[in-house]
Amino acid sequence: MELTIERATKLQTKPNWSDLTFGTTFTDHMFVMDYEVGKGWYDARIMPYQDLPLSPAAVVLHYGQTVFEGLKAYKDDAEEIFLFRPDENMKRMNDSCERLCMPTFDGQFVIEAMKQLIEIEQDWVPEVDGMALYIRPVMYATEAHLGVSPSKQYRFIILLSPVGSYYAEGINPVKIAVESQFVRAVKGGTGAAKTAGNYAAALKAQEVAEKEGYSQVLWLDGREQKYIEEVGAMNVFFKIDGKIVTPELNGSILPGITRKSVLQLLRHWEMDVEERRLSIDELLEAAKNGTLEEAFGTGTAAVISPIGELFYKGEKTVINNNEIGPVAKKIYDTITGIQSGDVEDPFGWRVQVI
Amino acid sequence: MELTIERATKLQTKPNWSDLTFGTTFTDHMFVMDYEVGKGWYDARIMPYQDLPLSPAAVVLHYGQTVFEGLKAYKDDAEEIFLFRPDENMKRMNDSCERLCMPTFDGQFVIEAMKQLIEIEQDWVPEVDGMALYIRPVMYATEAHLGVSPSKQYRFIILLSPVGSYYAEGINPVKIAVESQFVRAVKGGTGAAKTAGNYAAALKAQEVAEKEGYSQVLWLDGREQKYIEEVGAMNVFFKIDGKIVTPELNGSILPGITRKSVLQLLRHWEMDVEERRLSIDELLEAAKNGTLEEAFGTGTAAVISPIGELFYKGEKTVINNNEIGPVAKKIYDTITGIQSGDVEDPFGWRVQVI
Repeated sequence: MELTIERATKLQTKPNWSDLTFGTTFTDHMFVMDYEVGKGWYDARIMPYQDLPLSPAAVVLHYGQTVFEGLKAYKDDAEEIFLFRPDENMKRMNDSCERLCMPTFDGQFVIEAMKQLIEIEQDWVPEVDGMALYIRPVMYATEAHLGVSPSKQYRFIILLSPVGSYYAEGINPVKIAVESQFVRAVKGGTGAAKTAGNYAAALKAQEVAEKEGYSQVLWLDGREQKYIEEVGAMNVFFKIDGKIVTPELNGSILPGITRKSVLQLLRHWEMDVEERRLSIDELLEAAKNGTLEEAFGTGTAAVISPIGELFYKGEKTVINNNEIGPVAKKIYDTITGIQSGDVEDPFGWRVQVI
Repeated sequence: MELTIERATKLQTKPNWSDLTFGTTFTDHMFVMDYEVGKGWYDARIMPYQDLPLSPAAVVLHYGQTVFEGLKAYKDDAEEIFLFRPDENMKRMNDSCERLCMPTFDGQFVIEAMKQLIEIEQDWVPEVDGMALYIRPVMYATEAHLGVSPSKQYRFIILLSPVGSYYAEGINPVKIAVESQFVRAVKGGTGAAKTAGNYAAALKAQEVAEKEGYSQVLWLDGREQKYIEEVGAMNVFFKIDGKIVTPELNGSILPGITRKSVLQLLRHWEMDVEERRLSIDELLEAAKNGTLEEAFGTGTAAVISPIGELFYKGEKTVINNNEIGPVAKKIYDTITGIQSGDVEDPFGWRVQVI
């Protein structure tokens, strides 16, 4: 498929990088392509960033057929720009499409389009350490049809948004409330897909937790509300008695790309790693007997987010003296080092844009 | 709040009523109002039906903050137009808003706006028996913001769509596959809210069932996949050994307005009614010993949809000789009779538009 380019006639003034809040500033251009059953993907284009017309009867607004991804572009000291494992995002997005009865697409084509878009917007990639250009591919159903069935039309968009350093004031562990009322996802549902409904379902629990002074919730499984699944919108890891434990991918947990990278790193370092079911009772028992050494979330936004305190059924549990642990620190330094080009990349995770 | 009206300069030619397919034809006008945190609801207007601009970063497209309703307007023999229990739709929509961290609204104001819109579009309400004007209120998050938190801006829309007779060829019972892989909703999730994610999650199961020759799936609970919840996008009722049984509202089942009306009718008729947990095993056992007398779904679209066959774990169970049962028939005749004005309405369910 051909990719056409329409340049914006007027460019925005770049913001002050230090003023950025996540996901509110967008660059001058975006990638768009459309799909129709029987015709396939068509009209791939880079065009000025703008509002787009949408039918008020579009399937996405009523029945939620939409999937998205999140990744980042980093500028290194030589002013070269790199992506981190974009092939993994494309693979997961296609998996999400399958679950939501949406059309799949050629991931390699989209990565090439993404690269061209970033090349055009290269001045939007912050050169400051810790900052990056956030990339948001999203696909949603556009057919005007109120019958409950898969849409016959879709739109694929890539937005770019410069983001500040997640840890401008240093890595501070967060306080987490273990969620025992609300459920994010359940086996047989859409938890393993990166789709809107999972995030919509999670807002209420987040709101309640914030009111009580916690920054995120620790999600338990939907069947027994007993086994640990995720933390906020991140995967979660624990160091228990020298071993690193993370919940196994069970169909309701998002298969995180940072999660996958962390597991590869830990195994590369020949550390003891277990992907298995982990109950909240086992975790709190480990905290009580002194074997819970570290806890941290993993995701694209923060890379690593240490957990300093857990709140469950009226009891507070402080982890590692509310400080970042050595494993979390080593993973954070290594992954952000690979992303910024300061650390060797033995896995071939970096993909050059320019 | 004031309601402004902008009339379409050119009206569409009305379609041939007998050619209508559900949810693809829209009338000439729609209702729109907007919301912003700190400002509240504003700019309520009736305007020409059209596509609306939406940011590609709008929260609804990424995180699924959207809720909707469905109801119908009926024209009786005197050419008067009536709604069926619109207050119940407004109440449920506000409940859905609470669950999705969306702003609530004044239901009475929206009903008045709905009436004005229908009055303008009165020629779009089919006069043919069994046909109606479908009304779709929908509210969705419009703020351009990729952070995972509730949107600060929303849009509320009412669309009107004339719909054909659901049973143009007579009421034929449907074949249903009991779903044992996919899950629609789970306790603690969003199943009791009328929100997009529930429908997105359901599409895959529907696709698989259709390929195997079944028109809908019977949903089991997300915790044990043992207890009956809904059928397709409808609530479900069974007549077992003379009693009418329907799953109790447990937090993952949609509180249907047709369901509520059916329960009121049955109790009005002094029939034995039970709202309780009902396992698929109990149901199939009843079928085996000859006490499963009827099965039917209830919803706004079909009112009553008799179930003629169930398929579960390789076995087919035929119900009531694959015919509509006397209770289902009596409920259907009574509710559609009240809706069309042919049967007395002792409950005050009809609300006059003009």
